[in-house]
Amino acid sequence: MSIRYISQKLAQQIDEELMSASGAFSLDQLMELAGLSCAQALSKSYPASTHKRVMVACGPGNQGGDGLVAARHLHHFKYKPTVYLPKPGSKDIYQRLLKQCENLNIPILKDVEEFKEGLKDTDVVLDAIFGFSFAPPLRAPFDQVLNCLNSISIPIVSVDIPSGWSVTDGPQPLYTQKDDQGNSESIKTFTPEVLVSLTAPKEGVKGFKGKHWLGGRFIPDELAQKYQLNLPDYQGVDQVVELPQRD
Amino acid sequence: MSIRYISQKLAQQIDEELMSASGAFSLDQLMELAGLSCAQALSKSYPASTHKRVMVACGPGNQGGDGLVAARHLHHFKYKPTVYLPKPGSKDIYQRLLKQCENLNIPILKDVEEFKEGLKDTDVVLDAIFGFSFAPPLRAPFDQVLNCLNSISIPIVSVDIPSGWSVTDGPQPLYTQKDDQGNSESIKTFTPEVLVSLTAPKEGVKGFKGKHWLGGRFIPDELAQKYQLNLPDYQGVDQVVELPQRD
Repeated sequence: MSIRYISQKLAQQIDEELMSASGAFSLDQLMELAGLSCAQALSKSYPASTHKRVMVACGPGNQGGDGLVAARHLHHFKYKPTVYLPKPGSKDIYQRLLKQCENLNIPILKDVEEFKEGLKDTDVVLDAIFGFSFAPPLRAPFDQVLNCLNSISIPIVSVDIPSGWSVTDGPQPLYTQKDDQGNSESIKTFTPEVLVSLTAPKEGVKGFKGKHWLGGRFIPDELAQKYQLNLPDYQGVDQVVELPQRD
Repeated sequence: MSIRYISQKLAQQIDEELMSASGAFSLDQLMELAGLSCAQALSKSYPASTHKRVMVACGPGNQGGDGLVAARHLHHFKYKPTVYLPKPGSKDIYQRLLKQCENLNIPILKDVEEFKEGLKDTDVVLDAIFGFSFAPPLRAPFDQVLNCLNSISIPIVSVDIPSGWSVTDGPQPLYTQKDDQGNSESIKTFTPEVLVSLTAPKEGVKGFKGKHWLGGRFIPDELAQKYQLNLPDYQGVDQVVELPQRD
């Protein structure tokens, strides 16, 4: 049985079940393990010896929180991460995760021009901008960010869903929010070299042909069975497992 | 510079700093990473292929919480853990961690007789009974538990400080709480095969000669420098590092 590619709705439902009274996980726990998975997958794809400087691009939601956790672990894994966080989430947890990065003297960029400038000194990008809750249209400054990620030749590791892709249908025509004149701009999506799916891969990445990791080694067996996720075997103490390449 | 063995007081202070407003860590995060370290250290010492059945003995405090986290990860690492938790801590977090274990159908034992019986089907014990806050005298049922651990030939992996040892002075004469007649019983301490120190080793384990892991790869560099912890280099994505054997 091959692994199940899950819908946006099921991804949200699994998250809710894990954090319900019966699932009993806290967001702190799940985000810590998810971010650790991302850091491990990046490390197994691009070692610190060759790809020391990591730009961690963080969105305003939980995906950005995973990015902040990953940045911290990457620092401990001997990388030199920089965080780009233009719109910090308001939840207390994001403030705490940000502070933990600041305590490691990880540079935090807020301005998109700083981000573009920073990419010149970057060996690999961790894309933690949008996750499985993403729905278009695209809001500033992420239009510029995506245009920029589409134009660079640095490898990109995306978390869960490449930012800008439809969670259901993969790469699709993407537009910015309409301005006062009713105009919107078309944004080209990018295809990352590496993808880290969390919990289970989403329907939108069925056509992804690059290196594909699965992270989130915390799904209870009964939950996996209930939704027929057909998760692969993780090895040893790894928090990630590589999925077979698709034709 | 060799690693610093820290006092009970400094261990408590580091914990408080990590969880202060400026340290910004939550107990959920630290316990998750600590428990994961313990599971990794056990796995690197006793592989699941030869030591599948793990008895995780949990105390009533944070150390017991680390044990519950470790039991969950050990399940995902393909061990068959059993939890012995005679006095569950009252904090909400222990209830949640316990529920997470129950959701994996990990057997939870409460009775000391069940614990003794369970040891007959155990390949390795994870001792998460007392941590760096331990102070004698010994209260029931942990007198019986320690006597039992002293009599078995199954290997024991202790977390932070072998349960019953003085955090400052190591193995010392140990007594139970006085009964109504003012009598107390002498309890023999045990020496584990393996030790997992968290954050930094404690003064009491200076004389420990067995396999010694350090876990807790989350200490900010500035905190480590401030207290001259002289932490060793962790490798790759490992959450534990082996300390050199002492003569």
